[in-house]
Amino acid sequence: MNKSYQLIIVGGGPAGLTAGLYAARSRLHTLLLEKAGFGGQITNAEDVDNFPGFPQGINGMELGDLIHKQATKYGLETALAEVKGIEVGDGRKLVRTSEGDFEAKAVIIAGGSEFAKLGVPGEAEYTGKGVSYCATCDGAFFRDQAVAVIGGGNAAVTEAIFLTKFASRVVLIHRRDHLRATKVIQEKAQANPKIEFILSSVVEAIEGDTLVRRLRLRNLKTKQQSTLDVSGVFVFVGLKPNTDYLISTVKLDDDGHIAVNQNMETSVPGIFAAGDIRRDSIKQAIAAAGDGAIAAVSAERYLEG
Amino acid sequence: MNKSYQLIIVGGGPAGLTAGLYAARSRLHTLLLEKAGFGGQITNAEDVDNFPGFPQGINGMELGDLIHKQATKYGLETALAEVKGIEVGDGRKLVRTSEGDFEAKAVIIAGGSEFAKLGVPGEAEYTGKGVSYCATCDGAFFRDQAVAVIGGGNAAVTEAIFLTKFASRVVLIHRRDHLRATKVIQEKAQANPKIEFILSSVVEAIEGDTLVRRLRLRNLKTKQQSTLDVSGVFVFVGLKPNTDYLISTVKLDDDGHIAVNQNMETSVPGIFAAGDIRRDSIKQAIAAAGDGAIAAVSAERYLEG
Repeated sequence: MNKSYQLIIVGGGPAGLTAGLYAARSRLHTLLLEKAGFGGQITNAEDVDNFPGFPQGINGMELGDLIHKQATKYGLETALAEVKGIEVGDGRKLVRTSEGDFEAKAVIIAGGSEFAKLGVPGEAEYTGKGVSYCATCDGAFFRDQAVAVIGGGNAAVTEAIFLTKFASRVVLIHRRDHLRATKVIQEKAQANPKIEFILSSVVEAIEGDTLVRRLRLRNLKTKQQSTLDVSGVFVFVGLKPNTDYLISTVKLDDDGHIAVNQNMETSVPGIFAAGDIRRDSIKQAIAAAGDGAIAAVSAERYLEG
Repeated sequence: MNKSYQLIIVGGGPAGLTAGLYAARSRLHTLLLEKAGFGGQITNAEDVDNFPGFPQGINGMELGDLIHKQATKYGLETALAEVKGIEVGDGRKLVRTSEGDFEAKAVIIAGGSEFAKLGVPGEAEYTGKGVSYCATCDGAFFRDQAVAVIGGGNAAVTEAIFLTKFASRVVLIHRRDHLRATKVIQEKAQANPKIEFILSSVVEAIEGDTLVRRLRLRNLKTKQQSTLDVSGVFVFVGLKPNTDYLISTVKLDDDGHIAVNQNMETSVPGIFAAGDIRRDSIKQAIAAAGDGAIAAVSAERYLEG
């Protein structure tokens, strides 16, 4: 027999945990499923300065822990399991996971996103051998070495600043001629003598021996190729929603995000979405948490209706 | 000449302050206007247990202070002024306030809501003489006395629990035959020996001499009248959005909330709304903060466009 709940939440980041906090406080019999570690993407951030309530900033891992602690305090059940599919039938939803099947009348999908890949030769081969998607996790391996950061958004520029704690030189490579990151973050990076910028340029290949040694770059304006000697490459070129397994379950937009209305309702009654995974998300922890609360209130209304 | 900004934010609660935090970090020249005190409605709450990041709970005033500190840390300008009207003309918005006029290209309205009145005889007369809309502010005046709390939602039940610290007896009066508050809050109230419940009943009048002495009640099922001797009455019967001055500026729904889409855009280009004041808000601080971040990102996009 499948384990049965009123509500299943998929994903243990700020959106899922806040939904769990609200659901548990409403005494809904709720299970939260997380595939890797509680806290979500925010745990990859060394310093979170824009989550309201923490004027001194807070470490992302610590913030994730606090929200996890708060959600479970009120009786939220959690389990480590990867969701493989959701089947909708006759009012109940069957959630298929790596640890067996669970069922519930309502589901909140808050599975977030993962860092997009560059998709260039050498990237897969050197992942864990110099190629990384997490500066907090891997930055310390590159003490007194040169590293590259790929991307121009908040994640790329913030992590470039963080990497100057370890690396002797941080080269930020971005395809456009200007950065997309929030101004205050750009200013901080521009004031840091260890950071250099190579704009209007893309990585064409990552090369090395047993470890990464250099990047092949191309300037998109001059079309000229060049090489850059680095020991590490940190890739922050956007986020990809974790919705591959949902294509036949709920309506997705062209980018793979889940279509929702203001109440976080998806195309399927009783299935809700919250956080980075939903359409038009601004990909910020505070907005994801807000989404989670809204989704929980909507799920509660659905279960009572 | 009017003082001119890129962005004006109306309201200094979690929604407005989070919008201000994001706008300041994006280096938008921003002014936040607040009519009373920074922090908004949340500062009336003794304990906030459902704002993610604070597993032990946090005092509402303290949470408001933390968010205010964080927003101003990045250069947000603030002023105490009551907004009287917003005039839209030719790309610029003129914001008329008690302290003179200001103008900006974009405006975020995050003016929140205020506690609704009962609208019964004696309410206005005894406000400040036993009638209160803030238990945190006035609870301590009623040590060892009997008080009534009117309402059945989260605010009413939470504040009833808080008032048992002071009062000898707390009678919760609600028009419906069951409470609307989150289950965990209901359970806590039901377990408290100082709290009594009078359901399916309304207050018809508040009476006294120089101070409140009693309530006239009517049971909606039996139609019977009764009196209840109390020294204090705390009214928590819902929230009314602060939009009276906006009727001719932006589209409101029937309840007076501001109509917005998912990006917090109102019917007027360049005017955004966030928090309790917008349509379909769940009236929770975390959701208001999320709204604020979204509105700021949308305003930034508008200003760049």
